[in-house]
Amino acid sequence: MSVTEVALEGRGHLAFANPPLLAAWATVAGKKETQGPLGRHFDRIVRDETMGEKTFERAERKLFTSAVELVLSLSGRHASDVDLIFAGDLLDQIVTANFAARDIGIPLVGVYGACSTSSESLLLAAMSVASGTARRAIAATASHHMSAERQYRYPIELGVQRLPTSQWTATGAAAFLVEDAREARSQKAPAQGDGPTLRIVSATVGRVQDYGIKDPNNMGAAMAPAAADTILRHLQGSGHAVEDFDLILTGDLGRVGHPLLELLLAEERIHPKERLRDAGILLYAPDQAVDAGGSGAACSALVCGAMALPRLRRGEMRRMLLVATGSLHSPRTYQQGESIPTIAHAVEVEAVR
Amino acid sequence: MSVTEVALEGRGHLAFANPPLLAAWATVAGKKETQGPLGRHFDRIVRDETMGEKTFERAERKLFTSAVELVLSLSGRHASDVDLIFAGDLLDQIVTANFAARDIGIPLVGVYGACSTSSESLLLAAMSVASGTARRAIAATASHHMSAERQYRYPIELGVQRLPTSQWTATGAAAFLVEDAREARSQKAPAQGDGPTLRIVSATVGRVQDYGIKDPNNMGAAMAPAAADTILRHLQGSGHAVEDFDLILTGDLGRVGHPLLELLLAEERIHPKERLRDAGILLYAPDQAVDAGGSGAACSALVCGAMALPRLRRGEMRRMLLVATGSLHSPRTYQQGESIPTIAHAVEVEAVR
Repeated sequence: MSVTEVALEGRGHLAFANPPLLAAWATVAGKKETQGPLGRHFDRIVRDETMGEKTFERAERKLFTSAVELVLSLSGRHASDVDLIFAGDLLDQIVTANFAARDIGIPLVGVYGACSTSSESLLLAAMSVASGTARRAIAATASHHMSAERQYRYPIELGVQRLPTSQWTATGAAAFLVEDAREARSQKAPAQGDGPTLRIVSATVGRVQDYGIKDPNNMGAAMAPAAADTILRHLQGSGHAVEDFDLILTGDLGRVGHPLLELLLAEERIHPKERLRDAGILLYAPDQAVDAGGSGAACSALVCGAMALPRLRRGEMRRMLLVATGSLHSPRTYQQGESIPTIAHAVEVEAVR
Repeated sequence: MSVTEVALEGRGHLAFANPPLLAAWATVAGKKETQGPLGRHFDRIVRDETMGEKTFERAERKLFTSAVELVLSLSGRHASDVDLIFAGDLLDQIVTANFAARDIGIPLVGVYGACSTSSESLLLAAMSVASGTARRAIAATASHHMSAERQYRYPIELGVQRLPTSQWTATGAAAFLVEDAREARSQKAPAQGDGPTLRIVSATVGRVQDYGIKDPNNMGAAMAPAAADTILRHLQGSGHAVEDFDLILTGDLGRVGHPLLELLLAEERIHPKERLRDAGILLYAPDQAVDAGGSGAACSALVCGAMALPRLRRGEMRRMLLVATGSLHSPRTYQQGESIPTIAHAVEVEAVR
């Protein structure tokens, strides 16, 4: 099956007649993430990755809650102003989002899209506001290197050697506040900076792709076809050329998956050149020993919130596409010899004055 | 925190200005489910619960795919007519929905709400159609007794004794087709029977509740407060009295949780009487050795599709509320001594001539 064949259908593209605003966002990053090139740009830095908790699972939950509290405080909103929260994470039964939402109190729609959760939850939040059923919604996600490592791979204490194609699960969390444009105008919304307004104009829901890769230490290669399929369908659905975007931010293909995506797009005569960048490559510096790059539900969310959205808000970019990718296998399907199905969801954000 | 305090906020209620149609549905049930009181009403019966597959996980996937294929064939639609599928299941990383969607090919929004997945996916499908971004969407879920048992509890071969408060994970799958009303009018939609048209008029997204119950063998008690909270908020948000509903179908509180829900509602002076029924009690006969009743993502979906919706379609009922409930713990949070957070999502369906 060629990527074109799939793309030609142009399905799963959601155009919002009344584009909701991406009103505010907040990022909380772990120690290693802070030592990377985006270190200065996170809203909160966590040096103790246990967050003072007994378990890494509880620490991850605290990262999540912290990002949600921060986006509320940065936007001058209260939890009671928000109708819905769309959230998920990497842990079995998305316990980070589920347990955190118990304390946050906002009605929860739990989603699972592995590392594509950032764009999946963001597109659903946008859809809920665009449908007129929610005035305001939050999209949030988190991941923690330690909790992911021991769930998906080996006990941390075992110190298993990593492979050059391995990716490093990011420790951090991010939350995004989506608002009805009329709602925002009717109230004094403290903007995050004084730049242009950001709107979510459309989105493309991913289709599951599987090119038969079975190695969970090479998720970048497994996910590249999903990113290609979604980008092609988004271009077709939105009517945009690739040149209309200042940035197409994938996450998290890393150093192995990124060139594969370029090849797949080139086969369709699409050459995004330097506007195609990957969150898994951007989050860490080359000397940070993360092998093929970053991954984890927080990776694309952190890079989007710390780098891409601020550039839109500062007027340095006009249009971006967030294309978070996810590997949808489980440790059990891997043990049962199954290949790795993958997905990518796209969200288009534009800056308007 | 009293249930009233929560309910008074009336949040998370989604009213659809242009109610989408619940155009068709399909149920696929396992052997034990077929031996229950609804046995004759399922669309497909599966006597071999391995479905000819090597693993129960693959069998569960086949149940899921079968329900989706069946809802397409019953409605005279093709997969290419459907813009989105909202789906989830009980397995880690929702591998049933994720792997099945690879073969089905419809763009996937993966959700996780444990046994509340039926109403969670249905409300999202309705929201996507109501937002004008999808013409047609499917909501689907599945569960399998064997795959759930070994993931959540003990190896099946161990034959661990069940407790009187234990619930039995149902084996089966169901799929629901939601359509834009204009879309349906413009085409010849083969109705599932010639009765009234079913519309999804509103929904209420659950808030996570946790009354401190830690026993995963007593999920009915843990989930009753979530059902109470959602029902109260739905009544408040929709402006309906409890008497406006012919049926409030919860799932899956079972014989322990159902009377607790009645008590919680009675505290708020709400007495739904015989209109309040529970899918976990309805799915199996009292002599079927399922202890406190049925559970699993398929349980409420099967009862809704085999009993509730056909009654609406036959004109025997006018309005129902599906309130599927979910326990949001994981085996790991249980091992770490955490209590069980729970959720319930409500979907209101009305029959119009």
